[in-house]
This record gives sequence, structure tokens and C-alpha cells, in this order.
Amino acid sequence: MSGAVAIVGLGPGRETLVTPEVREVVAQATDIIGYIPYVKRIAARAGLTLHATDNRVEIDRATHALTLAQQGARVVVVSSGDPGVFAMASAVFEALEAQPQFASVEITVLPGITAMLAAAAAAGAPLGHDFCAINLSDNLKPWPLIEHRLRLAAQADFAMAFYNPRSGSRPHQFGQALEILRAECGSERLITFARNVSHPDQRLNTVTLGDATEEMADMRTVVLVGNSATRRIGKYVYTPRSAL
Amino acid sequence: MSGAVAIVGLGPGRETLVTPEVREVVAQATDIIGYIPYVKRIAARAGLTLHATDNRVEIDRATHALTLAQQGARVVVVSSGDPGVFAMASAVFEALEAQPQFASVEITVLPGITAMLAAAAAAGAPLGHDFCAINLSDNLKPWPLIEHRLRLAAQADFAMAFYNPRSGSRPHQFGQALEILRAECGSERLITFARNVSHPDQRLNTVTLGDATEEMADMRTVVLVGNSATRRIGKYVYTPRSAL
Repeated sequence: MSGAVAIVGLGPGRETLVTPEVREVVAQATDIIGYIPYVKRIAARAGLTLHATDNRVEIDRATHALTLAQQGARVVVVSSGDPGVFAMASAVFEALEAQPQFASVEITVLPGITAMLAAAAAAGAPLGHDFCAINLSDNLKPWPLIEHRLRLAAQADFAMAFYNPRSGSRPHQFGQALEILRAECGSERLITFARNVSHPDQRLNTVTLGDATEEMADMRTVVLVGNSATRRIGKYVYTPRSAL
Repeated sequence: MSGAVAIVGLGPGRETLVTPEVREVVAQATDIIGYIPYVKRIAARAGLTLHATDNRVEIDRATHALTLAQQGARVVVVSSGDPGVFAMASAVFEALEAQPQFASVEITVLPGITAMLAAAAAAGAPLGHDFCAINLSDNLKPWPLIEHRLRLAAQADFAMAFYNPRSGSRPHQFGQALEILRAECGSERLITFARNVSHPDQRLNTVTLGDATEEMADMRTVVLVGNSATRRIGKYVYTPRSAL
């Protein structure tokens, strides 16, 4: 007997951003697995076991999900945002690849509203032209690779979205990222700091790169950098569809 | 008296991907404006006017929305996917910037599930590391800029998502894009063609760049290209979270 794992995105926080298909698979689940603040969003009910963990080792969490599913459980792994964007989906496939005994477990991924798109919508349309998404954490890649990507993204004139821009364990790397961006894009380029996107205390702050400081970002912030044509119109920030 | 414009994303097609807040704003609307196939997804009801148009000039559609709102209507502009990703949000802000008489119209953007994330979820997790999104249409930008971005994106080792990869009016540019990708990434790199994502006739086809041909894409296809670490595990395609 083999159960199934669904890896789902709860969106960035506002409950009206959770898709109906994610609601439905959660309603059918026997087990919910995820990081504490995401599992907290799931209502308790009879027949459902909530496995909230503060374990930062996503592979362990993924292996737990596969183990329960192989025993017949209907497991839902919850991420915030979209599970395929810097979240649990890749971790589950890594665990599957490393442990062939789970090959028969059926895995589905259900998309969600990822933070950068909720932030962009709240600001206007800063990602309205070609763009890239970069995780600024160097937990899983070397910092020089991140710097390399920032330079090439600027040279491509991509709008950019940064996840995990700054944490207590690496408070100064984001300042280095800002230095690179100022050198490549100039000091007039617009940058938006979107904190707690879609939560009641959401805060948006758009400044120029010249005025941006590293303290404007923390781990609850998504950062959006415009391309060379991004501009303000009234209270909105947007990037035109066309480019020269 | 001034009404409002909400620019909303209906997701790529499957109704269970439409967020509750989009459903709600549609339920409150007096006027729906959009390209015919998207307006067709909205149920008719008393008090609601459906303005379906095959006009390819998005600025005209945006101006129509702003005009109705200024007259007091509650207008919803519908896009497929996410309205901020190669869709109507930027067009409305362009129209607003060009026509200051609409400055008092309240505009909100409600995010949606964009095609690349639904395609990625259906395939596994090919966008599980840093990635970029490029519109391959040269309607609004010169083709050499697209080639430039493709080369830099490959050099940054981004996974990539391509919108509008190929149309009847430019059948051979996508072949040129594939040539650039083969030269930059090698022939073993994985590429996924996701057609009619989330519709009943969804079709996924993952091949190597060496085996990819331009006929594999059309305007209903989202194309995902892996980074140097993207691989298959069973029937899934995924990109690990880590990079060297």
C-alpha cells in the first residue's frame, strides 16, 4: 500500500490567496508537514495530524513525508508562497533521488502565489517585463556565485526579485549586493522593499538605489529591483512592457 | 464620482487555481474587460457587462477600463495567469501615465498563478533554484535584446521560463533561441515544453536541448529550461536547491 505526498503552496499569508485546490487537498489530508508558522495556518480536525517542526534541514522533513506516505498516509507538505520557488518541492525530489525505496510514492506539486508576485501586485507592476528571481541566502551556494548572477542580471537589464535578502547570521551581504547593483545600474534605479507581503502589517517602501540601505531588508522582506525603464506613476511602481 | 479598476489574474486555466479574492472581486464587478478567451471564463449575470475584445492593442483596452471606472463603474480587467507577468497590469499603468485625467481612478492588482509556476509544478520543480522569465515575443522589444538576455541568463546559470515562445508571424526565432541555448548550455541540458498548462489537454514534453526542435513550441506553450544541475528523477524534472 502506498499513499501520496502533495507539496502545496499556501501563498504569502492572506487567506484569500490560497487556491481552492490547495484547500481541497488539505481537507483530504491525514498528515500535514511543514515549518511551524506554515503548519499553524492549517486548522486542526479529527483524523489530521499536524507535524510542525522548526527543523531547518528540509531533507529530513521531506524524508518524513515520504516515509509516512509509503505507510499509506495522505501527506501534505506545506510551504508558504509557491512550493517550487525556494521552498519544499526541490527538497522532496532531492530526498526521493537519494532514497530509491520511495520511488513508488506518488508526488504532486500544487502551485501557489509566490511572494514576489504578491509584492509586485501590491506595488503596481514592477515585474511587467523580463525579470529574474534570486535567493540571496548563501546557505546552499557560494556568495561569489550570487554576486556573479547579480552582475549578469543587471547587464541583461532584468527586473529582479530577491528572496531571503538578509538574516541575522549574514547581516552585511545585502549591503554588498546593493553596492554591486549601484555600480551596475546607477543610483537612480528604483528598489522596492516589501515586508510581510499580504499580511495585515504589510509595508511597502520604494526608494532609489542611492537611498537604499541594508537595514531596509530582513528575512520577512521580498526585494524588487526595477529595470532601466521602471518608474513611478502616482503611488504605483511599474515597468513598461516595451524595451528599446 | 470615481469607480475603481481591479486588474486580476485568472490563473492558467484550471478553475481550482483561481484565488478566492479574484472570485470575490469578479462577483462585485459591474464591468469585465479582457481578451475574448479570458472573458469567456466569467459567468454572465444581471448587472454585469462583459466587454470581450479581440483587440491586440492592450493600451486601448486599458483606456476603456479607466474610462468606465472614472464614470463610476467597478471594472475588472482580466488576464490569464498573473496580471503582472507579461499581461495587463503594465498596460493599465502605461495608459494611466499617458492620460493624467485618470489619476483619481483607484487601481488594485490581484495576483494569480502564472503559467510558468503551474508548468513547473506539473513537471516537478524545475525552477527550484534561481531563475528568470523572458517573453520571447519581439512585438515590444528588438530581437537582438532577447538574444543578449538569453546568453547572459545562460552564463548566470539561471533556470529559464519562456512566455510566447513562437507564433505564426515569427516561426523561426524560437529556433534561433534554441541554437543560442545549445551553444551556451550544451546539448544535454533539459528543456520542458508545457502546452495548455492546467487545462484538461495539458501536455508536458521534456527533452534535451540536443533533441529540441522549434516545432515543439507554439503560443500555447510555456517553455522551461533547466540550469546545469537540473535532472530527472522518475517521471519528475527538478532543480536542486544548491549550487556549486
